[in-house]
Amino acid sequence: MSEWSRSPVVGIIGGGQLARMLCLAGAPLGITFRLLENHQECPAAGVAGKLFQGDWNRPEVLREFGQSCDVVTLENEFVEASALRTAEESGVRIYPTPATMEIVQDKFLQKSELVKHGVEVAPFCSVVDIIEILRCGTEFGWPIILKTRKLGYDGKGNTTVSGPDDVERAWHYLGGGRHALYCEKFIPFESELATIITTSCSGERAIYPIVETIQENHICRQVLCPAPFEDKLLREASSLAIRAVNAVRGIGSFGVEMFLSRSGKILVNELAPRVHNSGHYSIEACHTSQFENHLRAVLGLKLGSPDLKVEAAVMINILAMQNLSRWPSGLCQGFNNFPGMIHWYAKTESRVGRKMGHITTTGQSLQECLQLAQEIVSTIY
Amino acid sequence: MSEWSRSPVVGIIGGGQLARMLCLAGAPLGITFRLLENHQECPAAGVAGKLFQGDWNRPEVLREFGQSCDVVTLENEFVEASALRTAEESGVRIYPTPATMEIVQDKFLQKSELVKHGVEVAPFCSVVDIIEILRCGTEFGWPIILKTRKLGYDGKGNTTVSGPDDVERAWHYLGGGRHALYCEKFIPFESELATIITTSCSGERAIYPIVETIQENHICRQVLCPAPFEDKLLREASSLAIRAVNAVRGIGSFGVEMFLSRSGKILVNELAPRVHNSGHYSIEACHTSQFENHLRAVLGLKLGSPDLKVEAAVMINILAMQNLSRWPSGLCQGFNNFPGMIHWYAKTESRVGRKMGHITTTGQSLQECLQLAQEIVSTIY
Repeated sequence: MSEWSRSPVVGIIGGGQLARMLCLAGAPLGITFRLLENHQECPAAGVAGKLFQGDWNRPEVLREFGQSCDVVTLENEFVEASALRTAEESGVRIYPTPATMEIVQDKFLQKSELVKHGVEVAPFCSVVDIIEILRCGTEFGWPIILKTRKLGYDGKGNTTVSGPDDVERAWHYLGGGRHALYCEKFIPFESELATIITTSCSGERAIYPIVETIQENHICRQVLCPAPFEDKLLREASSLAIRAVNAVRGIGSFGVEMFLSRSGKILVNELAPRVHNSGHYSIEACHTSQFENHLRAVLGLKLGSPDLKVEAAVMINILAMQNLSRWPSGLCQGFNNFPGMIHWYAKTESRVGRKMGHITTTGQSLQECLQLAQEIVSTIY
Repeated sequence: MSEWSRSPVVGIIGGGQLARMLCLAGAPLGITFRLLENHQECPAAGVAGKLFQGDWNRPEVLREFGQSCDVVTLENEFVEASALRTAEESGVRIYPTPATMEIVQDKFLQKSELVKHGVEVAPFCSVVDIIEILRCGTEFGWPIILKTRKLGYDGKGNTTVSGPDDVERAWHYLGGGRHALYCEKFIPFESELATIITTSCSGERAIYPIVETIQENHICRQVLCPAPFEDKLLREASSLAIRAVNAVRGIGSFGVEMFLSRSGKILVNELAPRVHNSGHYSIEACHTSQFENHLRAVLGLKLGSPDLKVEAAVMINILAMQNLSRWPSGLCQGFNNFPGMIHWYAKTESRVGRKMGHITTTGQSLQECLQLAQEIVSTIY
């Protein structure tokens, strides 16, 4: 365990809703926050102490920012690993480490590392041209998934290739030639599972429950906790998730997305080297949230219990529709009908599909939680 | 219920720990905060959007500040009611209202108003000179309590007058002649009780459980929830507290301090027109905290449930000792031993007896909660 003789200063690269929820979790602990962000009006700006405006991919910016903090952490996986390394070499403590970030932020490297450590993933292959994609399709069987190795999220940076005739469209759609791409075998899955594994820089570990995530258009819409499957399967998923985080030597809270295939096999889909949408429910439902435990982990403080303190929880994302303004009129209705369960991220801009906030309900059963959550959501839109 | 078509802006006069906890409670709701405070490095500054530096007793400052907010509220009762009135007359919405603040901030007026509405308080009397104090002592019986009508808190602004020979000391000690004073009959009490009553500007009301507060040197040290007394007595205390808040037409969360006399009678000691130390336990222990409900109340949003979601809770204040620095080394030990229950206020200065943070434990029984809380506290000091 670490001993801090004064209030530790945690720097967060990025100022979105994940940084916002980290700051809100850390404030009661007396942690001091600094944000590195290009946009002054970011969601975390209103709740963090100090905002450094700057480009986090510039090594000198990152180094200067890092030197004003005790520990630097990230709320997204898109920061250039080389810039992180430069800062680390100048003495800045960064968790997850630049070595981990380098592997995780390139999904091809990430999967290769997972395979190297015996973690089950869908068959995949790096591709440099259209011919290699065709070869993959023949090998894996059509359809296949074509993905960018870096910078993909929420369905951005990937496309399903239905057959040989679709390869050229897919190649151009993802900027083949400019962006490094790779292919994955399409896995007809029954469900998507996820969990949060928090690993402290002192080695301690907190393992959150396995949840089921329900996506629409590749964006997480609902999280059900615990995932409605038998214990044996949940234990298997937990064990897989731990091995995956171990494989990349992850420190802090990591999201682990998994597929449950129709044949009952569990595969790792991908790792998020940060607090994750599938763990937001932990604010209300667990003894210690993924956010507080992430801060404890990067500071070397003892981790809190990740166990559920309720029977069940459901999280639903509030996504911007065409008619969803910065503060939709229905939001007030939501607050009026169901006090105390809405998290609003205070984003200054809304575009269709953007995550504007989320709702968590807790209760005796998933069914009860789902019904209440859906009622709330219906009043907001 | 009010309908806000955009994120409402709440102005808070004062930037101490109460403002800090209001900001932390309001952030998930997407509320925008502004603080009016003389000191830039105040506890709330790190977690609120915007700090206006200025003297809140100057009407023009208060008016300008108020006009940038949708609603203004307070974290202390010391703001000049006349300054609040000037701002209100220029169209600023202020809750609690200046009319309520005028009554509550002068304890003599406050008690007179309570008596006028049939609320039981200890006998009291305004005094303008030493002769009137002597007359009170004869009437009430010695000892008596001499108090300043305004600006008293945490034992400041009052003294026990043991008998006629002690009157001159007491008069000079409290600045008699310069400060308006009043006398109260000394009530040998068995216990001190308290509660939070939240009243919305729309008329809705939330009634928190009755707690027992344990003071040392007039400063609240421990809060036990629920107070370990029979239901009939707790119901009587609740009813008295509601009548007290009604008497001053209080809006927002109000702390109501009460005495349980040795003869079993409950008297109102005093009202705090704001969120109150005796309600901090509600963050962990109640469905909706006194802080969130205060914000809901001043914004006209529906109130959340003030009911306990655990069997019992204990709150212990962390007071500065000579050896308690801004971030005492034991604090880290506290975080390490008992994750997730410490609230640190991030004060930049410490003086003996100052409230630096608090701890809340929840559990199956008061005994269990007390034991854990005392263990935590012992590691911090």
